[in-house]
Amino acid sequence: MLKSSYIYPFTPAIFKKKRRGALKNMAEKEMKQEKQEGMTVKKSNDFSEWYTQAVLKGELVDYGPVQGTVALKPHGMGIWENIQKIFDEKIKRTGHMNAYFPLLIPESFLKKEAEHFQGFVPEVFWVTHSGNNKLGERLAVRPTSETIIYDFYSKWIRSWRDLPLLLNQWCNVLRAEIKSTKPFIRGSEFLWQEGHTAHATKEAADVEMMLILDEYRDLMESYLAVPVLTGYKSESQKFAGALTTTTLEAMMPDGRALQMGTSHNLGQNFSKPFDIKFLDKDGTQKYVWTTSWGISTRLLGGIVMTHGDDKGLVLPPKVATYQAVIVPIYYKDEEKKAAMKKAEELKNLLQKNGVRVHADVREEYTPGWKFNEWELKGVPLRVEVGPKDIKAKQVVFARRDTGKKWTVKEKDLAKSAGETLEEIQQSLHKTARKFLDENISTVKNYVEFKKVIGQKGGFVKAGWCGEHHCEEQIKVETSATIRVIPFIKENSEKCIYCEKVAKETVYFAKSY
Amino acid sequence: MLKSSYIYPFTPAIFKKKRRGALKNMAEKEMKQEKQEGMTVKKSNDFSEWYTQAVLKGELVDYGPVQGTVALKPHGMGIWENIQKIFDEKIKRTGHMNAYFPLLIPESFLKKEAEHFQGFVPEVFWVTHSGNNKLGERLAVRPTSETIIYDFYSKWIRSWRDLPLLLNQWCNVLRAEIKSTKPFIRGSEFLWQEGHTAHATKEAADVEMMLILDEYRDLMESYLAVPVLTGYKSESQKFAGALTTTTLEAMMPDGRALQMGTSHNLGQNFSKPFDIKFLDKDGTQKYVWTTSWGISTRLLGGIVMTHGDDKGLVLPPKVATYQAVIVPIYYKDEEKKAAMKKAEELKNLLQKNGVRVHADVREEYTPGWKFNEWELKGVPLRVEVGPKDIKAKQVVFARRDTGKKWTVKEKDLAKSAGETLEEIQQSLHKTARKFLDENISTVKNYVEFKKVIGQKGGFVKAGWCGEHHCEEQIKVETSATIRVIPFIKENSEKCIYCEKVAKETVYFAKSY
Repeated sequence: MLKSSYIYPFTPAIFKKKRRGALKNMAEKEMKQEKQEGMTVKKSNDFSEWYTQAVLKGELVDYGPVQGTVALKPHGMGIWENIQKIFDEKIKRTGHMNAYFPLLIPESFLKKEAEHFQGFVPEVFWVTHSGNNKLGERLAVRPTSETIIYDFYSKWIRSWRDLPLLLNQWCNVLRAEIKSTKPFIRGSEFLWQEGHTAHATKEAADVEMMLILDEYRDLMESYLAVPVLTGYKSESQKFAGALTTTTLEAMMPDGRALQMGTSHNLGQNFSKPFDIKFLDKDGTQKYVWTTSWGISTRLLGGIVMTHGDDKGLVLPPKVATYQAVIVPIYYKDEEKKAAMKKAEELKNLLQKNGVRVHADVREEYTPGWKFNEWELKGVPLRVEVGPKDIKAKQVVFARRDTGKKWTVKEKDLAKSAGETLEEIQQSLHKTARKFLDENISTVKNYVEFKKVIGQKGGFVKAGWCGEHHCEEQIKVETSATIRVIPFIKENSEKCIYCEKVAKETVYFAKSY
Repeated sequence: MLKSSYIYPFTPAIFKKKRRGALKNMAEKEMKQEKQEGMTVKKSNDFSEWYTQAVLKGELVDYGPVQGTVALKPHGMGIWENIQKIFDEKIKRTGHMNAYFPLLIPESFLKKEAEHFQGFVPEVFWVTHSGNNKLGERLAVRPTSETIIYDFYSKWIRSWRDLPLLLNQWCNVLRAEIKSTKPFIRGSEFLWQEGHTAHATKEAADVEMMLILDEYRDLMESYLAVPVLTGYKSESQKFAGALTTTTLEAMMPDGRALQMGTSHNLGQNFSKPFDIKFLDKDGTQKYVWTTSWGISTRLLGGIVMTHGDDKGLVLPPKVATYQAVIVPIYYKDEEKKAAMKKAEELKNLLQKNGVRVHADVREEYTPGWKFNEWELKGVPLRVEVGPKDIKAKQVVFARRDTGKKWTVKEKDLAKSAGETLEEIQQSLHKTARKFLDENISTVKNYVEFKKVIGQKGGFVKAGWCGEHHCEEQIKVETSATIRVIPFIKENSEKCIYCEKVAKETVYFAKSY
């Protein structure tokens, strides 16, 4: 960026003018270089660098000053807002309501559940002062809200009449990441929703846990177009303090699994230390059973990795900030007015038909420049309209995912746009589904297991004796962990590691 | 609440049964006492206690463990969600987009604008550790986000093409309140939106500031039914770091003004220390002009104070969590099924017509109990339906604001509900408008000024010489401050304090 210090303040007027011209040229050039630079690496060549470029150049995020923090730029925030809308409707339809709980949690609360404390304490940001005053007790910036919410629940729940209590909050959460950070995937602050419910019985809590898992699955498959495997976590992979953790796991193009969301039955592990009891219909006091469940802006990372290509982002229409962008085309000044007017007209028409659409009527950029920008940003459908099109009462459609271009009659615009967006949505899901299916391997023995995990990656389905020792050894030797224990048991004869009788068939993978 | 420790674990079975019965009775009693207890103080007798009871018993909030923090309960969160929806639409329609910026702000950022730092530093919560590691630099939990956002803007803004930059974020903000706290009105954490925009000229920033002020005014008058005075703040009452602050001030029943929102032109006060420059069309580098503006959950406090009555909350229909509640009435068991079914049927019908409605089909509470609960919670319209009503194909409407009850034909339900809600909305606004008008006084001299401020309260319109000395003396002597300097100048002859020539006519009041 040009700094004002480049300009000597007392230059004679004649030089000023000249310099101004030079500056303008420099700036134009600089801008072209900076802003117009597309992806410089292929997805298949250097996946990690490709990802960083895709999220930064696609303008989803920018790095913040504190390690592991990012700003969600409007183009990224729009996706999260759409996800919020979709999931918020789902949970409200199933009887949940939103609330908001304090950010700052007294250290003593976190300590009440030992496993939970051990699990989170290395990542906690601690507030020790307000203004110039040292606080009597350190306050945690919430890494998750079980403990503070349960303090409220212990006051709010008295009787079976108060159950189930079905609350959710949309908020920010902080977990200090000191190792490698990656926008959306691993950071010190993220946005999420956390549901916290209380029930009279274990069975009711199990039903809740599974209900939410199913809503998550639908969100991921039908809206994000990211297929997932669902199942239980093993003891060692459970949420700190949970009785049962269920998970949704997607497979990324580099062969590593991405945990997309989790839903836990926390049993009475929290209700006991937090003294959340209710008077049941039978007149006795009982501890409630609680669940918690969350999805976060990490989902955006899953979308980017799954669908993006060498030109940058490819966004699934159902959650894309803009589903369509209209680019007016003109060659002469006298054509400009008509093209601009038509672009606005088409925008209004699509908007009325429920399409999230943007008309890019900036005069200072060429159509080619705009094409590149919106491709980098992954807008699913581009609509071009130029002098010939106006005359012929047509527009040109271009699909971001396939690059296919074709003309559409202007009178069919809304219908065709709707159909095309639906096709793109289906097609992205189908491709991702195929990739997931092709990346589930079965192996004969541990030698083969190591080979697949080390080379191809993906999920490896294998028998497991159920012992932590084998799980741990596999992790140490291959970096792979048990990602999912399927709900429907499949039979394996032997444990892939110790070759003793298998308790169940599980999915291993390296993961983010 | 009953504690399990009351139950000796080895009691013989016969005593257990007896105790169980006793416990049940105790608990039922306890519940009746606790939950059914309505307001115990009149709004006109002890306004402060009335307010606390209204927000707690009306289930908008509950106190958190850290001083000045609260949990927003679902009934309170619902109001905020409605306000968010309304205002979010307004700002998107005027070209703004949402983003999200990091919570943690390095201390050095806050220090860059001296006034701003001085203004906020006594209230900052400081993060000093992550896990067991002491941080190199203290991090502020955002008290407001100008500084961190401007750090990003200095990277994002290069050229006139990048302007205006019109962003907003919905988030939590923390300001340590060590003195008196009051739910919604003054607390250590609140939810808000903060808009942050950058422009090429002072005039463009002024237009933005006024545009937003006008959107705020419409939100408050047309949706919250809380009338406001708008105008400038004096130098001493400006936002820390602002060039110009505009404000919206409502008058509460106790004669004190409540600042409902502010919109600032920050001039180049931040763009210079944060080095936010753009290359203008004329080829020169210039500093941008920025604005910021915010409304918060404080608005809920304004709603409660303005509209509530001796029975508790009275919510304006346009932002009420539930606009209507349906209470089925039955006397015999055989009537129950029909009443419950009808309640659900009416709910679905109203829902289809865009009414936010709840059917209270809990069997364990009497209709009278439910009436009291929903009155306490301020639901604008109650719809009762009993055996006689079902037979006569009618329902009974009861207005929360006036207490008026009347029957409505079932076929007219949706239409009548819509009309009644609109009437309630208008009526609340009219009453509040009348109160505001009646509480603007003009006075002849400072003796009268002190008398009105000390006894009646409200706004006092008076001449002011423009000198800080007079403003400060009035504050010291009467606790009143200049709340608004009207946009349209009115002529006053003399300053109310020093009796020199008046520069302008201003509105004084004591305030929250």
